[in-house]
Amino acid sequence: MMRNNMANSYFEWPLRVYIEDTDAGGIVYYVNYLKFMERARTEYLRSLGFGKQFIFNSALMFVVRAVHAEYIQPARLDDELTATARLVKIGAASLHMEQLIQRNDELLCKGEVEVVCVDKQSMKPQRLPKEIVSAIKH
Amino acid sequence: MMRNNMANSYFEWPLRVYIEDTDAGGIVYYVNYLKFMERARTEYLRSLGFGKQFIFNSALMFVVRAVHAEYIQPARLDDELTATARLVKIGAASLHMEQLIQRNDELLCKGEVEVVCVDKQSMKPQRLPKEIVSAIKH
Amino acid sequence: MMRNNMANSYFEWPLRVYIEDTDAGGIVYYVNYLKFMERARTEYLRSLGFGKQFIFNSALMFVVRAVHAEYIQPARLDDELTATARLVKIGAASLHMEQLIQRNDELLCKGEVEVVCVDKQSMKPQRLPKEIVSAIKH
Amino acid sequence: MMRNNMANSYFEWPLRVYIEDTDAGGIVYYVNYLKFMERARTEYLRSLGFGKQFIFNSALMFVVRAVHAEYIQPARLDDELTATARLVKIGAASLHMEQLIQRNDELLCKGEVEVVCVDKQSMKPQRLPKEIVSAIKH
Repeated sequence: MMRNNMANSYFEWPLRVYIEDTDAGGIVYYVNYLKFMERARTEYLRSLGFGKQFIFNSALMFVVRAVHAEYIQPARLDDELTATARLVKIGAASLHMEQLIQRNDELLCKGEVEVVCVDKQSMKPQRLPKEIVSAIKH
Repeated sequence: MMRNNMANSYFEWPLRVYIEDTDAGGIVYYVNYLKFMERARTEYLRSLGFGKQFIFNSALMFVVRAVHAEYIQPARLDDELTATARLVKIGAASLHMEQLIQRNDELLCKGEVEVVCVDKQSMKPQRLPKEIVSAIKH
Repeated sequence: MMRNNMANSYFEWPLRVYIEDTDAGGIVYYVNYLKFMERARTEYLRSLGFGKQFIFNSALMFVVRAVHAEYIQPARLDDELTATARLVKIGAASLHMEQLIQRNDELLCKGEVEVVCVDKQSMKPQRLPKEIVSAIKH
Repeated sequence: MMRNNMANSYFEWPLRVYIEDTDAGGIVYYVNYLKFMERARTEYLRSLGFGKQFIFNSALMFVVRAVHAEYIQPARLDDELTATARLVKIGAASLHMEQLIQRNDELLCKGEVEVVCVDKQSMKPQRLPKEIVSAIKH
């Protein structure tokens, strides 16, 4: 189900590459781009009002169901990067995000991430809270 | 280009989930399955004769160009898992692997990983060494 | 309180350095030696009978209260290492371990780690279970 | 050798706890506090003028020789923390830093870190660049 009018569907988050993020190839360890993408997703949800309160008081949580990442150019130690999160599709229980890692105008990594809203106990998919759908669309 | 007779195309690697692998959801942090898959790929290449010597003496190295992962069931602290690596396609400069994370007969995570052979300096794709292609096919 | 007759007080655990463990300096990221030490501690406790059952069924858990590490020589990609765990002191609620990371006979890193037995809910220190003290001393 | 007039000897760096930082205990994985401390050290050195240019153009680099950390209270998912770096001693080739992780006024972790200036090739200790000593003292 594609929604058309997703007003608050784009988000940017700046970050710096530290030694912890790199590997012996002298570049950012490719696995760590997924962490950068998640920071942007987390801050995007926080910007919509779903931060600490949602995380700790709700019976729901978001889990990742699928990730796809393409690696175009490597990032290096001390680089200043931008991680983006753009909502491309809302399902009944899921959000599909396109996420880019950029260094200025250069695209380094492109990701597609599907996150699903689940019950914390049963881990079963649950409808997205109306407040989230509403926050995204306004 | 698909090769048909890949005799040495399947590999299994056992591993244990430690606290370092988990997150506050009480399960393995989904990003870390990619590390588990890479351990299996690394040991697979080592089993074909491409271990330390290749890594340090060759002008070539392998980098990941694309990753796709689907998360089916979570792994938990102290689980004994098996990471598999199965070669599904050989390109001129690339290997396409299917990789599974299993707990006994239960499939937890399914990955597809494309690794490319590149020159260490230029990072440009290079033909796979004949020895690797040969080792895979015999 | 020092105990003298700690029969089962020494443990060795082999491990391999993967790309995930390294940093842009071309060596193992120093922080990751602490993970290696923890794997050895975990397997040491498992060898004494405190594995999965203890972790999931007990109201107690172990947390790290203090760590000291000295870095002598770097480990590198693909190295085969040994992580050791030696119990040097038992307190009422704590275990003091000396832990080494070695490559063959070469000492790479030396650590001292104090772990405390706490209640999972209150996080307050609790007496070590008699079974653990007993298992260590026999 | 203790220097007395270290004008630029204190630094604070804010950070947020993401899911990547946590473990199955529901708290920040204790090893990761060392990463937080390093971010603060890195930014402290950058604030003195030793950022990207120093890292890539100098024959020198800093490595950690020893770490001591005490864990007082756990940090949790989504916490806003402050990592501090305070220079307590300058040796001929080394910097001794005291580093705290705080949540508002609450001390969570206290670290002492000794970093040594070494030659990138030989890994042997080298005198601290005069510019660094000078930048610290003014």
